[in-house]
Amino acid sequence: MLIERRDFLSTLTLAGAASLLPGTNLLASMIPKKEKLGIALVGLGYYSTDLLAPALQLTEKCYLAGIVTGTPSKAQAWKEKYQIPDKNIYNYQNFDQIKNNPDIDIVYVVLPPSMHREFVVRAAKAGKHVFCEKPMAPTVADCQAMIEACKANKVKLAIGYRCQHDPNIQAVMQVAKDKRFGPVKMITSAAGYFDARTTHWKQNKKLGGGVMGDMGVYALQGARLATGEEPISVIAQASTTRPDIYKEVEETMMFMLEFPSGARATCQTSFGINMNYLQVNYEKGWLKLEPQSSYSGNKGSMSDGTIINFPLKSQQAKQMDEDCAAIINNTDLIAPGEEGLRDIKVVEAIYKSVATGKSVKI
Amino acid sequence: MLIERRDFLSTLTLAGAASLLPGTNLLASMIPKKEKLGIALVGLGYYSTDLLAPALQLTEKCYLAGIVTGTPSKAQAWKEKYQIPDKNIYNYQNFDQIKNNPDIDIVYVVLPPSMHREFVVRAAKAGKHVFCEKPMAPTVADCQAMIEACKANKVKLAIGYRCQHDPNIQAVMQVAKDKRFGPVKMITSAAGYFDARTTHWKQNKKLGGGVMGDMGVYALQGARLATGEEPISVIAQASTTRPDIYKEVEETMMFMLEFPSGARATCQTSFGINMNYLQVNYEKGWLKLEPQSSYSGNKGSMSDGTIINFPLKSQQAKQMDEDCAAIINNTDLIAPGEEGLRDIKVVEAIYKSVATGKSVKI
Repeated sequence: MLIERRDFLSTLTLAGAASLLPGTNLLASMIPKKEKLGIALVGLGYYSTDLLAPALQLTEKCYLAGIVTGTPSKAQAWKEKYQIPDKNIYNYQNFDQIKNNPDIDIVYVVLPPSMHREFVVRAAKAGKHVFCEKPMAPTVADCQAMIEACKANKVKLAIGYRCQHDPNIQAVMQVAKDKRFGPVKMITSAAGYFDARTTHWKQNKKLGGGVMGDMGVYALQGARLATGEEPISVIAQASTTRPDIYKEVEETMMFMLEFPSGARATCQTSFGINMNYLQVNYEKGWLKLEPQSSYSGNKGSMSDGTIINFPLKSQQAKQMDEDCAAIINNTDLIAPGEEGLRDIKVVEAIYKSVATGKSVKI
Repeated sequence: MLIERRDFLSTLTLAGAASLLPGTNLLASMIPKKEKLGIALVGLGYYSTDLLAPALQLTEKCYLAGIVTGTPSKAQAWKEKYQIPDKNIYNYQNFDQIKNNPDIDIVYVVLPPSMHREFVVRAAKAGKHVFCEKPMAPTVADCQAMIEACKANKVKLAIGYRCQHDPNIQAVMQVAKDKRFGPVKMITSAAGYFDARTTHWKQNKKLGGGVMGDMGVYALQGARLATGEEPISVIAQASTTRPDIYKEVEETMMFMLEFPSGARATCQTSFGINMNYLQVNYEKGWLKLEPQSSYSGNKGSMSDGTIINFPLKSQQAKQMDEDCAAIINNTDLIAPGEEGLRDIKVVEAIYKSVATGKSVKI
């Protein structure tokens, strides 16, 4: 098993302990490793219930060890369904005691975005590695605080960018790297679905709602991953076709991005319409992906005849296994906190553009 | 043959003549009609040479009767290739004498956009029906003057929107009419090609260059025809990746449109990259077309399984035949001057948005 850091440290001199902190591997080979890391899911909404918990039945490097919920009935149901021991069930008040629980190696924050910062910081302070769902947080300041907290507590922070673990999306990223079709010139990226819900956090500004942080991040990632670059300016327009429901946040966002290389992208995201595609036009070819950010079945083609259609059992299982491998081996995460921050920087600029009606430098 | 209006009018009393003007059909059945209308092409560049002249070998309702060119060597070459009699060959100076030429029923203006207004007005004053290439003209004021001149001289004015005569594009327009997938929600429309030329009118502001009026009109038409609506606002961004060539005009334009129904579109057009596609997301389905504005081979599909792939020998031949039929039968043109004006209204708003950096109401 992976040694529980705090307990273990208490048995060592300070000097000896330092070499065991993440970032050092001096004694790593001497520490017996857990076969599977224990994950505690924080927030038991749809995504935890229908995607993450089932995925955790498929993972090889981690398992559902605990839950954190504010709803006792949910705690009871999950306890029975997944045989979770009482000692691994927390609520939002007693959550910090998780620091004393050696079963829990990782806290996965699956709460509304407005709560991400608080629970990532609390998890970090409890000495647990952290997975955090996207959008990372409502503001850049939040993201920076989360990254700092994890750094200060020497735990890893991974953002739940399942798509970056999907070989179909990795195929797009690979073309950005190997430049087989020359530089990217123009991109169209769209991600949306019709959301029939009316009182979800996605419609609530205080909870971090609005389509931009949710589906918008997929539209944005389509352009960012296809270029392998960070946008330097954006101009955006927010709108809604259901003002009775979308009172506080936008239902739809359109935005146009400029990249350092000269590549340009037009992006669309909406809670009003099902759409999900990416089209990349390179100097000497093209790539299409549709869907581009589905839970399964992302597929496409390239102008040279390459078919993008890699089989994948579960994005979320692959994501969690790969992130756990990075923790176990102390290697780089595929999508660390810094990657989440990159998106939120653009999201903030997009809202600024909406507010000013003008292009915003990033 | 179609009676030559001015000569015929001179033989009649004013009262009798009135009933023969376009818009009245009292004596129409009594006038022997030409089997084929004679077309004079004005401007013998690439489009006339490689597209229109060959198409005029396929047309049933019109033929290449004359040419108007400022280049004597071109006049000689065309005369020989197409057996054009000397009396039907004009230059820009003696062009107005075309009014006395009964062989010429229609003047087709294929000049750089900055010259459209002058030659459409001169053709109308010569009593000839007019076909005019797109973009109709650099400004709304130009378009209005052209429409007025044709109205005042009781001749028809058709804009060379070949795509609106293409059954594959008409399939898109039909869905806008029959609303089989409900209202349009989001559109992506892209039209561009890599233009290796450096000193063409397309790179020259005075001549009416810039990608927006050229390929941009196709990107715009993709959105306009898919909605069947006129945009009410636009926000646009111009750019270039070849500042040495695109000094005066933009190489690339991205723009976002809002329609009265709430439909939204992101559009891209460029002389820097080959791309040509349309994706329409309706409330209950989708339509894709790629290419969407090619000279041939426009094709696509819809979410209900409908394939869009109608065979077509020549867009331009069909366009000219259908426009000639409208002249012969005095029926509505598919794309009259008013349709060209609709696009230029948006193009003007796009340039205003680029200049101000803000959204512009149309």
